[in-house]
Amino acid sequence: MADVWEGWERRDRPPALFRRFTFARYAQTREFLDALAAAGKACGLHPQNISFGTTYVNVTLEAADGDRLSAAEEAFAGQIAALAMAQAGTGR
Amino acid sequence: MADVWEGWERRDRPPALFRRFTFARYAQTREFLDALAAAGKACGLHPQNISFGTTYVNVTLEAADGDRLSAAEEAFAGQIAALAMAQAGTGR
Repeated sequence: MADVWEGWERRDRPPALFRRFTFARYAQTREFLDALAAAGKACGLHPQNISFGTTYVNVTLEAADGDRLSAAEEAFAGQIAALAMAQAGTGR
Repeated sequence: MADVWEGWERRDRPPALFRRFTFARYAQTREFLDALAAAGKACGLHPQNISFGTTYVNVTLEAADGDRLSAAEEAFAGQIAALAMAQAGTGR
């Protein structure tokens, strides 16, 4: 697996990963959002914030412990990126 | 029907309605988001932006024509508020 942080922007205070995904159509955005919700439910993690419009989704993953991102949180970031790619989303 | 703008904050340039809804639990937030997506699909309208975390959803409805909110957009605002109330969400 490639570095899960690839394409994500690291932010500190608190530690977080941020990434903007863009899609050609709302249908793809919707599919991605639904897949993201299902994936989060499966692993018990939820992004700290998701901000979306018809063709973009901004995702912020924050370290739940406020100190550093856990391996599970980093894996979730990788999973989210893969879900976006499945909808032909661009990660920037 | 009560004034659909009640509880919404009006913004200009472009004309928009903004409202923050808060929920006790993520399950309610999720139900609201799913209901909002279904309602938007049904009437062919989508908020310009939705920003959410585990227990809050910020909704921005912008005038699609950039000039003024249409009757359909205002009705959608009322419908969104009703969906939040169905999940015991508070509109502030």
